[in-house]
Amino acid sequence: MSTTTGVSSRLANVPASPIRKLVPFATAAKKEGVHVYHLNIGDPDIKTPDVMLEVLHDWDKNPIGYDQSQGNPGFLDAMLWYYHRLGFTFLETSHIQVTTGGSEAISMALFATCNPGDEVLTFEPLYTNYNSYAVVNGVTLKGILTTSDTGFHLPDRKTIEAAITDRTKAILICNPNNPTGTVYSADEIRMLVDIAKEKGLFLLSDEVYREYTYDGREHVSLLRFMQEIPDSAIVLDSMSKRYSLCGVRLGTLVTLNKEVLRGVLAIAQGRLSSGLVDQAIAAKLVDVPDSYMEEVHKEYMNRRDVLYEGLRSIPGVVIPKPEGAFYTIVGLPVADSEHFCQWLLTDFRDNNETLMIAPAAGFYATPGMGKNEVRIAYVLNIASIRRSVELLKKALSIYPSK
Amino acid sequence: MSTTTGVSSRLANVPASPIRKLVPFATAAKKEGVHVYHLNIGDPDIKTPDVMLEVLHDWDKNPIGYDQSQGNPGFLDAMLWYYHRLGFTFLETSHIQVTTGGSEAISMALFATCNPGDEVLTFEPLYTNYNSYAVVNGVTLKGILTTSDTGFHLPDRKTIEAAITDRTKAILICNPNNPTGTVYSADEIRMLVDIAKEKGLFLLSDEVYREYTYDGREHVSLLRFMQEIPDSAIVLDSMSKRYSLCGVRLGTLVTLNKEVLRGVLAIAQGRLSSGLVDQAIAAKLVDVPDSYMEEVHKEYMNRRDVLYEGLRSIPGVVIPKPEGAFYTIVGLPVADSEHFCQWLLTDFRDNNETLMIAPAAGFYATPGMGKNEVRIAYVLNIASIRRSVELLKKALSIYPSK
Repeated sequence: MSTTTGVSSRLANVPASPIRKLVPFATAAKKEGVHVYHLNIGDPDIKTPDVMLEVLHDWDKNPIGYDQSQGNPGFLDAMLWYYHRLGFTFLETSHIQVTTGGSEAISMALFATCNPGDEVLTFEPLYTNYNSYAVVNGVTLKGILTTSDTGFHLPDRKTIEAAITDRTKAILICNPNNPTGTVYSADEIRMLVDIAKEKGLFLLSDEVYREYTYDGREHVSLLRFMQEIPDSAIVLDSMSKRYSLCGVRLGTLVTLNKEVLRGVLAIAQGRLSSGLVDQAIAAKLVDVPDSYMEEVHKEYMNRRDVLYEGLRSIPGVVIPKPEGAFYTIVGLPVADSEHFCQWLLTDFRDNNETLMIAPAAGFYATPGMGKNEVRIAYVLNIASIRRSVELLKKALSIYPSK
Repeated sequence: MSTTTGVSSRLANVPASPIRKLVPFATAAKKEGVHVYHLNIGDPDIKTPDVMLEVLHDWDKNPIGYDQSQGNPGFLDAMLWYYHRLGFTFLETSHIQVTTGGSEAISMALFATCNPGDEVLTFEPLYTNYNSYAVVNGVTLKGILTTSDTGFHLPDRKTIEAAITDRTKAILICNPNNPTGTVYSADEIRMLVDIAKEKGLFLLSDEVYREYTYDGREHVSLLRFMQEIPDSAIVLDSMSKRYSLCGVRLGTLVTLNKEVLRGVLAIAQGRLSSGLVDQAIAAKLVDVPDSYMEEVHKEYMNRRDVLYEGLRSIPGVVIPKPEGAFYTIVGLPVADSEHFCQWLLTDFRDNNETLMIAPAAGFYATPGMGKNEVRIAYVLNIASIRRSVELLKKALSIYPSK
């Protein structure tokens, strides 16, 4: 019998945020009075719709009690309205589980589809938090490499099928993609649906950035194929980026698979409910004017353009044109992007300003990848993006340890 | 290779809420126009402090962005102020992880202390959601029986030690207890601390109802022993019951164990942050007047008195005097309390009113226990409690299938 208190060995496997170790350097720079442009995290400066904030000003519910475990009925109706408006009129509220953030949706989906030790295929570079949810749910995440030269689009079917083993239970995609900005084509989604169908795999589609596709590119939702593979398709969603509601912790898990719905509801009952106030705010999405989404979309596309045009003019920088979301993986003429990102915060100053961007290594599952790449989130206004590009250019021109 | 899509076998092990199957009967009764007194769930009718709701009315933050993963600095400071005020001045904010509800605190603690398949000892009847968190985290929950005749107090040390195996990693208590209303004595907590120390176990104390102890009984927090067993003690807390903030999903995990703190912060980073609005509301706890807590405490004690005096006057009803929280496990002169609770909703009407209470079987880990018991939550006002007791008395006098 053990006589010392040891934590779980799995605890150390939960990865700390890859940008976390840089935060103290950013904090120190700010303490010196240096202005830091934060392009390191997807926390947009876009305004939340006024109609949502009015919910707070008009609040008259007291006490703030539990909401229903499946979700607030008003918010569920609002989400149904949203999905119907996208054309997916086969959906009913019974197909929707409200989750506390898109994070909980992904975590629940991994738990529901996998036994401990089962594998989930995804494509790297990947959203780093997938690693956390995988560890928390005892799942092994296997990354299939995508690369800059194809704009991080999917490899061919043979390559994907070669990665499938006896333990593979699901394929997880993020579309539009964080961190690459890639928007998968109808052919790519069709291929994944076919693989899922033939190999008996779940297909999980994280569509948090659904509205953010550029240059007239259409978004091909897994919802379009959901009736074809009703037991395999699970769509994961979030309010955070669509309405600039990152601090309102709400998402959804959508599926026609009744066993999954029953199971995730049981998990949801265990944690009682998502936030009552947050759901009241989000339920107002039905009253957000179309002009809001149009303006936000236009703003992100403009930012993308400024960033893309600016970065591609810098010698040695490799950037495929981002197709969606508000991230991009950028190749830099440096040997160790983590060192470069840290040096930006500790040493580089221009007019007392600097830049915070995320080393890309943490976005890969394969060790050694991403060493000369960074992820940039274009979540600041045009003037800040322009200035950030300028800062990056100057920094690269004088960075001593290329 | 599998060719059908099967959900995880662990999914079916997540228990559905034990009161959930009765909800359709309550809904049906209400549709008939019957008034249902809800003493089945701990969702109090007590008002949230005005000073907290003012945060909403005065809201001027836009956008509603992510908060910090460890917690909102203002809320962390408020919680530190709260713990210091209780006398635990050794605590620093670095010892506190903000969680999305007490639920997440418990779930994180189980993950952090146990490898899959490890065992956690607790005392039954138990808070049913412990079962959910155990399944979600791959942990085996072992219940040690406590009984009505001792007021559900702890068994002796020998009995507890006999339940410890090679796989036991932690002891989990709820104090004051949901569902029994028991408040553990200083001797009982001391005994658990000694066991934890000698056997190398974690001791997890869920103290969500800390303020609700009656008849001058003191609450013995595990915080009092935290410096004695700094690596083993973890306190789990929630805002829900203290300030009638069930729909504000906030709790805390408090420990001096740095490895645990580092690990739960990594999990927290994966889910980004708890709600920004919720944390702004809860941070106002520093401005809640003492008179609020005094009145709430008095109100619950009055309710307890009315319930206790009322129920003990009913022939065949067994009720130990509840010492704290706002729940009690009550023995009824029926063979099958689940059938009785359902019958209340489907058949029993008095002046077009009936009562919803929770069958106690779901609060036990041991099959077959609690068959003639119910859990009653005294979360309604005095008049409603009085009427509920009257309804129960009448119902028992005519219930046909004793």
